[in-house]
Amino acid sequence: MDIARVTGSVVATTKTPGLSGRALLLVQPIDGSGEPTDLPSYVAVDRVGAGLDEVVLVAHHRAARLAVDADVEVDAAIVAIVDTVDVAGRATYRKE
Amino acid sequence: MDIARVTGSVVATTKTPGLSGRALLLVQPIDGSGEPTDLPSYVAVDRVGAGLDEVVLVAHHRAARLAVDADVEVDAAIVAIVDTVDVAGRATYRKE
Amino acid sequence: MDIARVTGSVVATTKTPGLSGRALLLVQPIDGSGEPTDLPSYVAVDRVGAGLDEVVLVAHHRAARLAVDADVEVDAAIVAIVDTVDVAGRATYRKE
Amino acid sequence: MDIARVTGSVVATTKTPGLSGRALLLVQPIDGSGEPTDLPSYVAVDRVGAGLDEVVLVAHHRAARLAVDADVEVDAAIVAIVDTVDVAGRATYRKE
Amino acid sequence: MDIARVTGSVVATTKTPGLSGRALLLVQPIDGSGEPTDLPSYVAVDRVGAGLDEVVLVAHHRAARLAVDADVEVDAAIVAIVDTVDVAGRATYRKE
Repeated sequence: MDIARVTGSVVATTKTPGLSGRALLLVQPIDGSGEPTDLPSYVAVDRVGAGLDEVVLVAHHRAARLAVDADVEVDAAIVAIVDTVDVAGRATYRKE
Repeated sequence: MDIARVTGSVVATTKTPGLSGRALLLVQPIDGSGEPTDLPSYVAVDRVGAGLDEVVLVAHHRAARLAVDADVEVDAAIVAIVDTVDVAGRATYRKE
Repeated sequence: MDIARVTGSVVATTKTPGLSGRALLLVQPIDGSGEPTDLPSYVAVDRVGAGLDEVVLVAHHRAARLAVDADVEVDAAIVAIVDTVDVAGRATYRKE
Repeated sequence: MDIARVTGSVVATTKTPGLSGRALLLVQPIDGSGEPTDLPSYVAVDRVGAGLDEVVLVAHHRAARLAVDADVEVDAAIVAIVDTVDVAGRATYRKE
Repeated sequence: MDIARVTGSVVATTKTPGLSGRALLLVQPIDGSGEPTDLPSYVAVDRVGAGLDEVVLVAHHRAARLAVDADVEVDAAIVAIVDTVDVAGRATYRKE
């Protein structure tokens, strides 16, 4: 799963049926120190009520659909809100 | 899902049967500010009537086929036309 | 699907059974202007009689097998020969 | 499978049900010499009792779920603790 | 499929059951000229008796399991030993 920060959201009126009513958040992958990685940001369906600037875990492809609905056209889903990240035994992130 | 801009289209007469009659658009992944990311452009099947320069969401692999047809040789599909992108609470893109 | 140029071919005598008799072409992903992208070249099974230097579309993973055979160990297949690429309303590639 | 080093761990209270009780480790892909590659770190479910700084193999997507549970929203799993890496006939890593 | 060179091997005693008895080789993706690409090296299960320094084809995800066993936690498999690579009609690699 990617560790990522929620940076924004997307609104789309014209969409395929399976996306109807899904919360579409923009996420930026980060490393263990909270810095953005080289991976570009992308859009994931939120399943855990994540808010702006929160650090989350994002599952991809079928793993995403297992958290949303097996038959919908979704390939990324936010599956956890991160409380703490520890790197080398030291907390590098702690949710406020 | 990738957030991407429609930059062009592709015509192919010689193709496998499952691609017959599909609208093949060229898309360039962008970030929340609308700038191209490092990801290269690629071809996606359009499911929502997207036009040139529009910002769209693209689903991949099985998610793409769930929006097109489960048994066709398609690995990317445009599943939404984006109306607005908000980053850090500020609109960075608004469809005209 | 990747848009790519056929740059060569590969011969392999020792291979798993499902690859037997498959045309194995080397392809280089390109952008809408025909320039190589940062993606490295890779090997795809040809399904459309593509020739050297032709611009093609390549499908990946299960999409590739849907164009070849659902149960073979293939993860990339050439599924179309591109006639034209249009970017911003202008032809950037036209098959000769 | 990626060869990677365990660099840390993640705690998440709010998560989808399938992640409940899973050990979530942060891993950094490395090359045969033990140096970090350009791939960013990510989170994988541990299946083998891996510890901090250990070199491990990580399987992805369905391969990860085959090591965890076929129906959970997991897309990366640690499936082996590496004892030795040999490159060009020379040991470049040996677990202590 | 990736075209890659076998650069080494990995030994792991502690692993999930499906990896038991599998030959785990380290491979480095290369381009048509035999030069390493930007893709990092990774570990693949050997199905064809590949040796050190040989050029091989590697299949990924389900394609890999179709060459190994559909239900094992493997996401990359060596499926062919390359005899020759031709680029632009000229042999750039020939197995000795």
